[in-house]
Amino acid sequence: MASLAIYPGSFDPPTLGHLDLVTRAAHLYERVIVAVGVNSSKQPFLSIEERLQALKACSKDLPNVQVDQFDGLLVDYATEKGAQVIVRGLRATSDFDYEFQIAMANRRMRPEIETVFLMTKWEHSYLSSSIVREVASHGGDYSSFVHPEVVKLIQNRQK
Amino acid sequence: MASLAIYPGSFDPPTLGHLDLVTRAAHLYERVIVAVGVNSSKQPFLSIEERLQALKACSKDLPNVQVDQFDGLLVDYATEKGAQVIVRGLRATSDFDYEFQIAMANRRMRPEIETVFLMTKWEHSYLSSSIVREVASHGGDYSSFVHPEVVKLIQNRQK
Amino acid sequence: MASLAIYPGSFDPPTLGHLDLVTRAAHLYERVIVAVGVNSSKQPFLSIEERLQALKACSKDLPNVQVDQFDGLLVDYATEKGAQVIVRGLRATSDFDYEFQIAMANRRMRPEIETVFLMTKWEHSYLSSSIVREVASHGGDYSSFVHPEVVKLIQNRQK
Amino acid sequence: MASLAIYPGSFDPPTLGHLDLVTRAAHLYERVIVAVGVNSSKQPFLSIEERLQALKACSKDLPNVQVDQFDGLLVDYATEKGAQVIVRGLRATSDFDYEFQIAMANRRMRPEIETVFLMTKWEHSYLSSSIVREVASHGGDYSSFVHPEVVKLIQNRQK
Amino acid sequence: MASLAIYPGSFDPPTLGHLDLVTRAAHLYERVIVAVGVNSSKQPFLSIEERLQALKACSKDLPNVQVDQFDGLLVDYATEKGAQVIVRGLRATSDFDYEFQIAMANRRMRPEIETVFLMTKWEHSYLSSSIVREVASHGGDYSSFVHPEVVKLIQNRQK
Amino acid sequence: MASLAIYPGSFDPPTLGHLDLVTRAAHLYERVIVAVGVNSSKQPFLSIEERLQALKACSKDLPNVQVDQFDGLLVDYATEKGAQVIVRGLRATSDFDYEFQIAMANRRMRPEIETVFLMTKWEHSYLSSSIVREVASHGGDYSSFVHPEVVKLIQNRQK
Repeated sequence: MASLAIYPGSFDPPTLGHLDLVTRAAHLYERVIVAVGVNSSKQPFLSIEERLQALKACSKDLPNVQVDQFDGLLVDYATEKGAQVIVRGLRATSDFDYEFQIAMANRRMRPEIETVFLMTKWEHSYLSSSIVREVASHGGDYSSFVHPEVVKLIQNRQK
Repeated sequence: MASLAIYPGSFDPPTLGHLDLVTRAAHLYERVIVAVGVNSSKQPFLSIEERLQALKACSKDLPNVQVDQFDGLLVDYATEKGAQVIVRGLRATSDFDYEFQIAMANRRMRPEIETVFLMTKWEHSYLSSSIVREVASHGGDYSSFVHPEVVKLIQNRQK
Repeated sequence: MASLAIYPGSFDPPTLGHLDLVTRAAHLYERVIVAVGVNSSKQPFLSIEERLQALKACSKDLPNVQVDQFDGLLVDYATEKGAQVIVRGLRATSDFDYEFQIAMANRRMRPEIETVFLMTKWEHSYLSSSIVREVASHGGDYSSFVHPEVVKLIQNRQK
Repeated sequence: MASLAIYPGSFDPPTLGHLDLVTRAAHLYERVIVAVGVNSSKQPFLSIEERLQALKACSKDLPNVQVDQFDGLLVDYATEKGAQVIVRGLRATSDFDYEFQIAMANRRMRPEIETVFLMTKWEHSYLSSSIVREVASHGGDYSSFVHPEVVKLIQNRQK
Repeated sequence: MASLAIYPGSFDPPTLGHLDLVTRAAHLYERVIVAVGVNSSKQPFLSIEERLQALKACSKDLPNVQVDQFDGLLVDYATEKGAQVIVRGLRATSDFDYEFQIAMANRRMRPEIETVFLMTKWEHSYLSSSIVREVASHGGDYSSFVHPEVVKLIQNRQK
Repeated sequence: MASLAIYPGSFDPPTLGHLDLVTRAAHLYERVIVAVGVNSSKQPFLSIEERLQALKACSKDLPNVQVDQFDGLLVDYATEKGAQVIVRGLRATSDFDYEFQIAMANRRMRPEIETVFLMTKWEHSYLSSSIVREVASHGGDYSSFVHPEVVKLIQNRQK
């Protein structure tokens, strides 16, 4: 049976849509690792440390959720952790073809790890990290898009 | 934790893509019920009994898989069985918007039941029950699309 | 300037998504005609009269909205009424290609009438008349999908 | 090299989009067979004979185009004719997932026959046989959607 | 009623598809502001001043159209101007999911502003600013993609 | 008749999906030119020379396939070479709207050149150059994604 699931992403920053997914995953699996992928080439909005801090604050009431970071290939990280499942969120406005392509490549490399797609709540279907970054960088009000802890981190950054 | 999953469908007939999904689900959940929806209005290709028989034959090596039929709403059936999860298969050529719409309606009616999407193997991404029906009704060779037991059932029908 | 808009559909039955669209259209145009298309070939769920009654009840607080029925081509009806605009609702799960195809054909026949797409509220993005019919015909609870007046009409039908 | 291409369809009725495709195919291949699939279950708009007559009239200036009908599986017909290629038209508003699914199933049955997709002219991207049937059955003007020969055939039918 | 519409974009450069949209919007609303978004991070093809100049030249026969630029969030700009409507163009080849996501985010921030989607003419459905930039930078002939005034501006640039 | 086809791309690196397409095209046309587009602005993964070398090694058993590079507009290059056809591969997970847009723009510039879409094998439908780059740069095993010659070239690069 699947007992450990990895929920990977760049979470830059984590949105309420991401947190909804974490909560759903925490109901479905014994243990969930929210894993921040380290992508050295892109200039980040929040640092890895800030994203880890944000995810920890957001998931502190979910005892079976752990926050971690990984470098290298996701399937290698999942294998190392002993996960049976990779969880991905789907929104009605997701780029589904891209999600499918990544999941197929992962399966080709590690057929024993299953990618499982969960549906984000409809009220978050417009929400993406890039929308938050866009609104924040133009001085707009993004407080209904993210957890209060993330608001604080972004405000500290912008000072 | 999610221990019981329902995999619903009309399975008219079950394809190798459906069986791939059943096998995946059987690895992820303690128990899986493959549930044939009874739809009285459509003229079926195989009878409910034949579909149940086909699914039982196909899943006989998966001890945690059970085959059943249901009438009425899927979410009512899932609640009655105590399932936490509804499993749906996604192919690259699925009508994803339709799948999403059904899943959203189901969540609205029973928010405690999660719809989980698994990816069918790529070599089955073209396969659907309607393709099998089409090929069989034109006298084509559909034996690489379905389980041998299903071939027998269709041949009996066509005599 | 566009002052009269037609919002066409089969509305069998009208959903809360349709009503959301009517309200939006009523804010954008001086007058809105909600026009029920008469399609003699399909076996309806509600009769034309019931649908008109339902739409009237739902829009009774919108003084600039009128309910009507039409036979024949939509663009002919729109021309006859003197409308400049046809309003269509888009949901994230709409069949957008189909909507576009119809709108392009309409423009080819009457280039002077503009099709304008409005976005349904996200909480209604799963809602379609066929979902309501499906749930109602299986004895499910569809009361959060439609206006109370529509609930009454469907219940009367089902007696 | 590919010298014979089959362009299959139900062509009920043939539209200007279909004729555009026939012309393109006639430039690419030595010989093209436009093949009307006989589907006994659906109630047709034009009879097979009328569709053959229409296609012949429309392609009479293309000496390397032949019009035919087929029963049974398309790939069996293509094999029997010795065709190397099946031609399908794609419009921006096509149901591409469906086209792909059919092409994949055909390849599985006959890997030696290639499905080749050509792009319909943009001014026909809204055009489908069902649009023509819809407009014609509501008494609308469909004369800019089809070849004059098809207009005659439909008018004869409607008398 | 909606009397003022904003048509936002980066218009780098404006294409005939954009101009088609401006003309449509000018028929539907009393006043239209074509608003060039200032995006400091991207290296532009035409400067803001050149784009404003191009848009003014293209719309000089539309007395109810005004050209402007904005910095910051679109919904803040629209609110400041007192616009009821944001107009977006849809082509059959648009990234509709992205358009929907932006429109949903804008609605969440300012529910009183409606996003209205109009359909670009089919003969422009392939046209985007990036296609023009690509063709121009490779020395191709882009004169049938843009207004003559834009040709002049690009030629001046390239000298 | 079409005798010369161009198969253009950036092939950075060529994948087994690309090679499948080359083989298909070589069966359909008398001569095929695989043409590497030179894009000076992007930082490449493999150099143009390495890509040409890789494509030559991969296609050495296809006597009617030639490998070349081009600068400038694809349609200009195709015209110069006297090609009647541009071949593009479609995967179920392709960005079909983008492919269509490019093909429409190319047709507008050179109506006499036809873009022909072929379907990649389903087992390669997840494969793209960017997946290979991603896996290679994270030290993963990409040897089942590309031709052995490409493995060697990437390994040389990474030393």
